[in-house]
Parts: sequence; C-alpha cells; structure tokens
Amino acid sequence: MHKIPVGVLGASGYAGRELCGLITQHPGLSLAFASANEQRGQRVRVGATELTYVATEDAPLDKAEVVFTALPHGTSARWVGTARNVGVRVVDLSADFRPGASESSMIKAPYGLTELMRSRIPGADIIANPGCYPTAILLAIAPLLSEQLVLPGATINVSAASGVTGAGYSARPDLLFAEVVEDFKAYAVGNQHRHIAEMRAVTAELGGADVDILFTPHLLPVARGILATITVPIKQHSDDPAALWRRFYGNEPFVEIADQPPSLRDVVRRNVVRVSISKAANVKQPTLIIISAIDNLMKGAAGQAVQNANVLLGLEEQSGLPA
Amino acid sequence: MHKIPVGVLGASGYAGRELCGLITQHPGLSLAFASANEQRGQRVRVGATELTYVATEDAPLDKAEVVFTALPHGTSARWVGTARNVGVRVVDLSADFRPGASESSMIKAPYGLTELMRSRIPGADIIANPGCYPTAILLAIAPLLSEQLVLPGATINVSAASGVTGAGYSARPDLLFAEVVEDFKAYAVGNQHRHIAEMRAVTAELGGADVDILFTPHLLPVARGILATITVPIKQHSDDPAALWRRFYGNEPFVEIADQPPSLRDVVRRNVVRVSISKAANVKQPTLIIISAIDNLMKGAAGQAVQNANVLLGLEEQSGLPA
Amino acid sequence: MHKIPVGVLGASGYAGRELCGLITQHPGLSLAFASANEQRGQRVRVGATELTYVATEDAPLDKAEVVFTALPHGTSARWVGTARNVGVRVVDLSADFRPGASESSMIKAPYGLTELMRSRIPGADIIANPGCYPTAILLAIAPLLSEQLVLPGATINVSAASGVTGAGYSARPDLLFAEVVEDFKAYAVGNQHRHIAEMRAVTAELGGADVDILFTPHLLPVARGILATITVPIKQHSDDPAALWRRFYGNEPFVEIADQPPSLRDVVRRNVVRVSISKAANVKQPTLIIISAIDNLMKGAAGQAVQNANVLLGLEEQSGLPA
Amino acid sequence: MHKIPVGVLGASGYAGRELCGLITQHPGLSLAFASANEQRGQRVRVGATELTYVATEDAPLDKAEVVFTALPHGTSARWVGTARNVGVRVVDLSADFRPGASESSMIKAPYGLTELMRSRIPGADIIANPGCYPTAILLAIAPLLSEQLVLPGATINVSAASGVTGAGYSARPDLLFAEVVEDFKAYAVGNQHRHIAEMRAVTAELGGADVDILFTPHLLPVARGILATITVPIKQHSDDPAALWRRFYGNEPFVEIADQPPSLRDVVRRNVVRVSISKAANVKQPTLIIISAIDNLMKGAAGQAVQNANVLLGLEEQSGLPA
Repeated sequence: MHKIPVGVLGASGYAGRELCGLITQHPGLSLAFASANEQRGQRVRVGATELTYVATEDAPLDKAEVVFTALPHGTSARWVGTARNVGVRVVDLSADFRPGASESSMIKAPYGLTELMRSRIPGADIIANPGCYPTAILLAIAPLLSEQLVLPGATINVSAASGVTGAGYSARPDLLFAEVVEDFKAYAVGNQHRHIAEMRAVTAELGGADVDILFTPHLLPVARGILATITVPIKQHSDDPAALWRRFYGNEPFVEIADQPPSLRDVVRRNVVRVSISKAANVKQPTLIIISAIDNLMKGAAGQAVQNANVLLGLEEQSGLPA
Repeated sequence: MHKIPVGVLGASGYAGRELCGLITQHPGLSLAFASANEQRGQRVRVGATELTYVATEDAPLDKAEVVFTALPHGTSARWVGTARNVGVRVVDLSADFRPGASESSMIKAPYGLTELMRSRIPGADIIANPGCYPTAILLAIAPLLSEQLVLPGATINVSAASGVTGAGYSARPDLLFAEVVEDFKAYAVGNQHRHIAEMRAVTAELGGADVDILFTPHLLPVARGILATITVPIKQHSDDPAALWRRFYGNEPFVEIADQPPSLRDVVRRNVVRVSISKAANVKQPTLIIISAIDNLMKGAAGQAVQNANVLLGLEEQSGLPA
Repeated sequence: MHKIPVGVLGASGYAGRELCGLITQHPGLSLAFASANEQRGQRVRVGATELTYVATEDAPLDKAEVVFTALPHGTSARWVGTARNVGVRVVDLSADFRPGASESSMIKAPYGLTELMRSRIPGADIIANPGCYPTAILLAIAPLLSEQLVLPGATINVSAASGVTGAGYSARPDLLFAEVVEDFKAYAVGNQHRHIAEMRAVTAELGGADVDILFTPHLLPVARGILATITVPIKQHSDDPAALWRRFYGNEPFVEIADQPPSLRDVVRRNVVRVSISKAANVKQPTLIIISAIDNLMKGAAGQAVQNANVLLGLEEQSGLPA
Repeated sequence: MHKIPVGVLGASGYAGRELCGLITQHPGLSLAFASANEQRGQRVRVGATELTYVATEDAPLDKAEVVFTALPHGTSARWVGTARNVGVRVVDLSADFRPGASESSMIKAPYGLTELMRSRIPGADIIANPGCYPTAILLAIAPLLSEQLVLPGATINVSAASGVTGAGYSARPDLLFAEVVEDFKAYAVGNQHRHIAEMRAVTAELGGADVDILFTPHLLPVARGILATITVPIKQHSDDPAALWRRFYGNEPFVEIADQPPSLRDVVRRNVVRVSISKAANVKQPTLIIISAIDNLMKGAAGQAVQNANVLLGLEEQSGLPA
C-alpha cells in the first residue's frame, strides 16, 4: 500500500517524539523527515525504528503532503508560513493559530477538536491542534453548553492536573526529578493560564457565551496524563446525568463515557478522552461533577494531530491510533 | 528533666508510627507503650530508637498520663472509653468523637483544631483530633467564615489531593505501588466523602451556617501531603486579599501565609499549614482561590495530636514539633 | 482471517493481564476465555476491549488450542495436567516445569527461552516459559558460555533489579506505594533466590557446567522492567567484545546488542532483550560487564509466552508482539 | 550558649542546601553566610528559617571559623585557597583534595571518613570530605581490609545505585522527572567512574593494596539515598560473619550493623551508614555479600561534613546530626 509522506518540525520534544512514534507505526503514513535544530544529526530510537534529526531549515518540506509543527509557541507561526509557501498543508500543535491567540488574527485555521469540528477539517490548509487542557475540558463540557443547561452566568470551576511532559522537554530546574517527585502544586493560580483565552473562545462558540471558567492547573509527579475535575452549576438535575453525554457523542470512537470516575491509567498511551458525570450531593445549587481524563501527549497533542491529519487526508479517522 | 509518660494505641499504622517518632524525640514526653495487635511482640525502629509493640489489650494504660488512640474509626471509641475508665486523658485521632460523627452524640469532646479551639483544650478529658482534609480546609477558610465574607448561600468548591498514607497502612490492591505510580484519580466523587459532615459542622460553628461545601478528593502518587485548592465566591474583593489571614492568625507558629502558592514540598515533615490567597481574574463573580498545604501525617494527624497534648499537659505548644 | 482460540488461566495478575492485552491485539489469536477465581464475573478493560473473568474451574479448556497458565507456582502444575487431559497444549508461565524445579521431575517440558531453544518448541505439549530474571541473564551470557570463554571455575556476579510487578499482584504491605516509593533494597541476599536453580541448570546445559552464579536481586521503585548488571571473569579480552554477541544472535528480531548500556526505558512495553558489553578497566583479571534489560512482563513473561505460542502454532514468530 | 559562626560556599546545590538546614538547627553552630552565585540576592526557606544567598565573591569569609565548600569539582580548590589565605579552616565537599585526585598533589588534606580517620582531623586546616559512593563502600569493607581477610589479588565487585541528587542540582535533560521516573540504568560502565581512584587509594591505605575494585554505579528513580551491593571473595568463612564488623565499629554512633539487608528507607535523612553481611550460598569460592546504605546528602555529604566540623571544632561529634 502506498503511504503518504508527512514530516515533523520540532521532533525532539515530547509531542514531537510521540508524533514520530505514531507515524512510523501508521499503516497509511510514512515519515519524510523529522527536524530538531539542537539535535541535528543525532540518531534516536523511536519504538523499533531509528531516525536521524535534520535541522529545521534543512527539512525538505516539499517532500511531505502534511507537515506537523510541534515547535514552541511563537516560533511555529513562521514555519507554518514557510510550509504554506511551498503548498504543504499543516497541522500546527502550537497555540499560534488557536482561538484566543493574538497571533491568529490574520490567518483563519479551523480548531482541530476533531469530534466537534470535524466538518471544517477536510478542506483546510492549516489545522490549529487544540491545547491539552482545552481538549480535556471542552470535550467534557460541550454537551452541557450545546444544550444550554449551564446555570446562566455561572462559573464552571476546573481544577486540573497534568503530568510533567505537559511542560515540554526543557531543562528547567523545577522539572528535575528530585524537585518533582513527592511534590504537587498549583501554578498559574488566579485564573491566569494562557489556555483560558482558548477555552473561553471555544466555550462561547459552543453555546456558553455567558459562562465563566475558573481554571487552576496543577503539576503532578507523573510523566503523562491530564485529569480535570470540573464542577458545573446547572439549571436542574435529570434522572440519568450521563445520558446527555452518551447521546451527544453516540459512537465516537475516541470518547468514552464511564460509569466510574476515570483515572490517568485508563487513558495513558491511548487517543481517547474518558469522562464521568456525577451529581453533587449535599449542596443547594444543582451541580454536576465531571471528571475528564486524557493522555496529554496523545488525545492532548500527537494523537489528536494524527486524527486531524487522517481526516484532512481522507484516511480512516482511527487509522494508526491506539484506542 | 522529668518526662511525662504517654502511650499510643494503634502504633503500627502511618499516623501511629509518626506519633511514636515524635514522642521519642519530644523533650517533655516519654513513650510508655505502643500497641499494635497484629504486630504484637514485633521490634521496630523509630528514628534512632527501637521499640516493641504490645497487644492493645495488654497496654498498661494507667502508666500514661495521656493516651493517643490511632485506631480505626469505630474501634477507637471503645478504647477511649477503657482509657477514661482508668482516668487517663485521651487524644483520639479517629473520627469517632468529631463533629458530625454519629458516634459522638453522647460524649462531648472538644474538636482539636488547635489554632481555632485552643481555649477548650486544657480542661478536656478527650480531644477529637481533626481529620487531615478538614484541617487543611478549615484553617484555610476560617478567616472568611469568621468575618462573614463568603457570598451568602454560595458553594465553596474544594478540589483536594492526598498522598497514599492518607488511606492508612492497609494492604489494599489499589494502593500497591504498581497501581498508584503514574496514576491520579478522584474518589468519593459526588460530595460523598465522610469528612464532609465534619467540615460542614465546623464550618457552621465558625460562622458559615449558610455555606455549602463541595469537596472532591483525589489520590496522589506521593507518600504524604495534602494540597487543597479552594475557590470561594465572596461578597467583594479587598486590595490585599491575604491581609485578613495575616491579621486573623497573627503570630501562630504553625500557620504560614505565603506569597506564592504552597507545594507539598513546603510542608512535608513539618507541623504547619501553609496557605496562599489569590484573586480570580476573568470571572464576573468576585472569587478567591485559596491553596492550602499540610503534611497529612503531621499537622493532619500526629503533629496536631502532639500539639493538642502539649496544650492539654501545659507544655509549650511548639514542644517537640518540627516547624 | 481465521484466528486461533487461546485461553488464559490466572488472568488477573500482572502477567495474566498483559497476556490478555497481547492476545486481544494479536492478528492470529483470539481470546477464548480468561479465568480469575477471586474476580470471577468481574468485567475489566484490556486496552480498548472489555472481558469478563470466569472461574478457573469453569474455563472451557477444550475451546482453546493453546492455554497459557499464569497461576501461582505450585498451583499451575495441576491445571497444566487438567488441560493436557483434554488434549490442549500449554504454555506455562509458572516455575513448575522449569529446569531445577522439584516438580519438574516427571514431565519433560522444553524450556521456552525461544532464541536458544527454538527447535524444541514446535512438537511440544507443554512449554516451560522462563522466569523473568533468568531470561534477562541467560540470554546475556549464553554467547560466552557457548564459546567456553568464561574463566574456568569462576563466579559470574549478577546484581539485578526488578520493578514491583515482578512480585505479582498481591496485596502485601511491603508492596504498598508508600513503602516502595523513594526506597530501594536487595532481597534474597546470600544467593538464595529460587531462580538460581533454574539459572544454574540452564547455564550448565549451555556450556557452563563449571561456572558459579552469584545473584542478588533488588526491588526497584518502578512498575516494570528488569536491569541485570553482570560481571564475568573471562579467559582473555578480544578487541571488539560485542562482536561475539552480534555473531551469536545474528538477525534475532527480539535481541538488541547496544553500543550504550541499555536502560529500562529502552525495553519497557517491548518484547526484547537489550544487551551491552563493556571491558572492565583498572582490574587485573580480564572481566566483561554485561548490562541486560528486559520488560519483566513482556520478554520476561507474557511476551515470550506469546512468542513461544507463535512457534508452537506455526505462526510468524513476531506476530502480535511489540518490537 | 555561644554559637560558632560557619559559612557555606555553594549553598544552592543539594548538598549546600542540606548543609544550611543542618547548620540552622545545630545547637553549636550559626550560619554566617550562604553563597550561591546564580541565585545571589534570592531568599529561600531552609526548614522554618529563611536566608538570602550572597555572591560567592561577596561572602565574608573572615566572619566564619569554618567554611564548608560545596562548589563544583575543580572550582572548589581555588576558593579553599582564598579561605585559607584569610586563615579560615575548611571542610571541602568537592573531590579536589581527596586521595587520587590530580589536584590534591600539592596540599595535603586529611580524608574525612570520620570513623576511620578521626585522629587526623582536629589539627587540620582542610578536611577533604569523602565522596558519597566511597563513604558507603569504604566503611563497609574497611573491617575486611584491616584484617587482611580478602582473598589476595581478588576483585571486590560493587554494584551501587544512587538517587538523582547524587548528580547535583543541574538542569540536565536526562535528570528531568519525565526521563527518570520508571527508569533505571547503569552509568560509567567499564569501571570508569571518577570515584574509583579515590576508593583505590583509600583501600590501599586501609590494607588492601593488592585488591581490585570493580564498581558499576546506577541511577535510581529516587531523590536521595545510596545502596551498594558488595561481593567480596574472602580467604575463609567464619561462623558469624557480622562479628568482625561489630567488633571493628564498637559503639560508633553513626554505624549500624543490621541483621537484615538495609534499605534506603532505613537511612534517608539520617547521618548513618547501615551495613549487613551475608555468606553467599551455592558458590565454590567463599564470598561475602555486604549491603551498605547511606543517605548520599547526609552521611555521604552534608552530614559527614558537619560531623567533621564537629571534630575539628572540639564539639561533641554527634551534635546537630540526626542519628
């Protein structure tokens, strides 16, 4: 079978490495190049195969039908432009083209939250691959927003925790093993995280223009995985709170509505979001507690990027993705 | 210097071992006995000293001036009774005599949240040592409750995470290393945790009769420590949100009001609660985000128990406690 | 394509779960049943599929062409007999039929260290799947033994470390997260481990009748993986010490001779052994240091079991196995 | 009580921070300054106290009676010279003045393995504080060397593992949490570690001029602790192999001869070495297996440095040290 050549810019970070691993095992894609400026010329093992990084400026962009850009926020936009100039389509894993990003003003790129935006993807030149936290949170609350069930004017409270690969492969002292092990802490406290603009913009588009989001992320002593604990004041309870989610997502292959609250273990190394819905007892205001779990490097980054590329290229959407 | 003899019932669990460690290094206390039924006769090292467990029924209660009971909930009440029958005062680490516990109806025991209840302790026969989560949460919100600053009728949202010693030293398969490492999950989802009654009862007493608490605990892949992320809708913001806490707690030796959100690392192996206060940006409803961290085995159990015993016995409150 | 039905007895332990995961993703095998006495009737997720455990005595053995027994040592032999009585072939993951096991005296089962014993497998009724430590160690030293290069009468020193899944899925207090995290220790110190008889017997068969093995295992705070550090006094050094290993193993798909010492990360979730060979500087006696790494649940248990079943059933040896 | 002022150069690394923590809690020492070039001016919490780093060149050396240098190897020697020029005595934690170090040729500094070299310390101007691995290993084998019980010409085989703080507080990508967790690997394989010269030199001095040491260190996914597994071919076995160690070390407060093999948990945060001795079964050559455990930051660095300073200053040797 003919395989479609694709390339990865920024292949030495955690998302980039995960992308290379998925592509080399994908039945319909082949890896045309993998770039990493600082490790140019370095040979690395990805699963059972080996590859050699090229410098980003030496990447043969025109050899690929789709390029994945897993470069730092801010740097990515320029390389997306370069790729577009040679006519290559792009799945961009940075924040540069996402809703709410200041850089996104001039070029319109569909937001690749595949399950909710699927119809916009096939004809696009650039896909803005969602952030990891927004993926976990927006897929979890979309049914409530879509049905206008959130209490008008209410605040959706999100306490989320991410494994350290969410901070990228950067040699920061605070990410050293001896600093992270046996620790746990909140960061960007005060509703200040840069993902908030992305979440607010998409929330409004999904039907929650009136809704506030209060988001507190935490750093977990694990390598990968995001768990979001979301409390939503709603207008009124139904008998079976999860029924709405099952109806909304139907047979989506990468969305699991679970009876029990999901744990990271349920989703790590899989391209799924797993969600549970519970009623809050002992409070006057009807409130739902939604627990949402993803692997930040899979459904939260590389997996969803391949899912988007599959749709873009007319391949089967599940192709090459571990469910 | 004369040391006051004290005993520990239930000394082989995590809190019990921590108690033995504190007592053997305490300048004013000596360990009269340490009981552990299943390990009776077993010799264990506690810091640089060694001790031998006795069966609980063989513990020479009358040799102690104060007995710490670190027995399972439900079992403890009976042994507290036995100790009272021989005239020994008790610091009970179980839930049996805490506010909201069904067993507590007949006997009144002051709630040993030392900083808030100090005056009730010296004359008491039994102290109900607070739960670990309630300690972290109640000390964090007490200033707001006391000043009636919480939005009337509002829900205080608490997302908290605890190290696995919070579940006790029990050989449950779900607490095995290979099950917990690289995982993170919520439990008692739906505002169902047994600590909720304790928190609601004390919250009401502290001035929050109208306030709901929505509490979602999580299991962290760390041995010890609790971090609580608390969001509180308030009537209105002040310029310096932390000022109230600094004023309320003054020179309390075991309460730290921090500029930066605390992490477990800041508090582990110390008998302190460390709290930060932040205003939530980007939400219509004025809301504070309080991050509170304790060591569940120290300020959340054994440390606070020794703190209470110090007050009970007229010793210096900080004696033998790592600040 | 027709899939060959196979069954798993003892499917709830770590090796059993790994087996079920491999079988459900195997292109040539289907899972006829999975037994687990204590969890009978329980529904579990294995990757993206779900299965229900049956009691071991209710397992429809005759529905399977091959049965994998992942039962405790001692228990396994009886169920192997039961399976043989209905004519089913068995890959036994216990120690019951391995060389050096006292139970193995009556029934002869080929030792399934596939790379070294491949020719004996196709016609066998029972395969004794090797232990995890022996797999890592014997594959590493086999070339030296085969070529008679070990110093006559010498002791091969093995210091090895295993993740906690090596101890099985048993609720022992010493395997609790809070006991294992941040710890490391040796066990079975004094060359007392039950794997020693297995290793000595195979070592003799491979050409090392005169060689002693001194084996000290350690418990690592990781879930999976074995690393063995093996020092071998040899007759004399060659220029390229790894050349022998490359020649001996040729194109074996599951053996990797590495330039750099392997780490657990290189092998986890893969059915490979990865080995490096180094000369010891600064010692009078010519000595090689061999570092050998496997995933104890894959090449050390379930993966090698499937590899053996592939050979037994005439399937491609690599089928369904992550290299 | 008057406290003796001491200073720390290089106070922001792991050993430096541990030193500051010990000094601020020491009954006989006070911290005159703590230097850290890159963090100059930064305020940090050490236990319950806070301190501000000064630049190393701004450190008021003459305000201290003893300076601890916890600077990188190579850098330290220069600052030791500067301190000596103003007449301050030095405990140097670097390798610069240790036996076997090329830099040590001109200045003679006693090797501060306190239990073995105690008499040389009081009059010294500079103490070369031992490396962490050498501390664990040399204290474990010293009794055998001293009594000439090692098989002449034999190789002592050491497989040792260290927590990541042993690599220092440096932002290396390979020390990131996500790289270390769930991993384990050997390094400096081939008997190449720079500690080997130190160990060989001291081994010779202790009576083992003829003995080789083959040392393979490993990186553990823990923050702190060293475990060394040492196999020693000996002339002949005695009935009670540990008797020699008990006799040799008598009442040393910081040496523990254990019945069971020690684990990291037994020694972490304590200034002790804990050792077990076992006979190897199933080998022709009489061989002992010695397991030795220390906390690399305490007995392996800061603790032993304070122990040496205590001796140097005529304080009680155990003063300020957690046993």
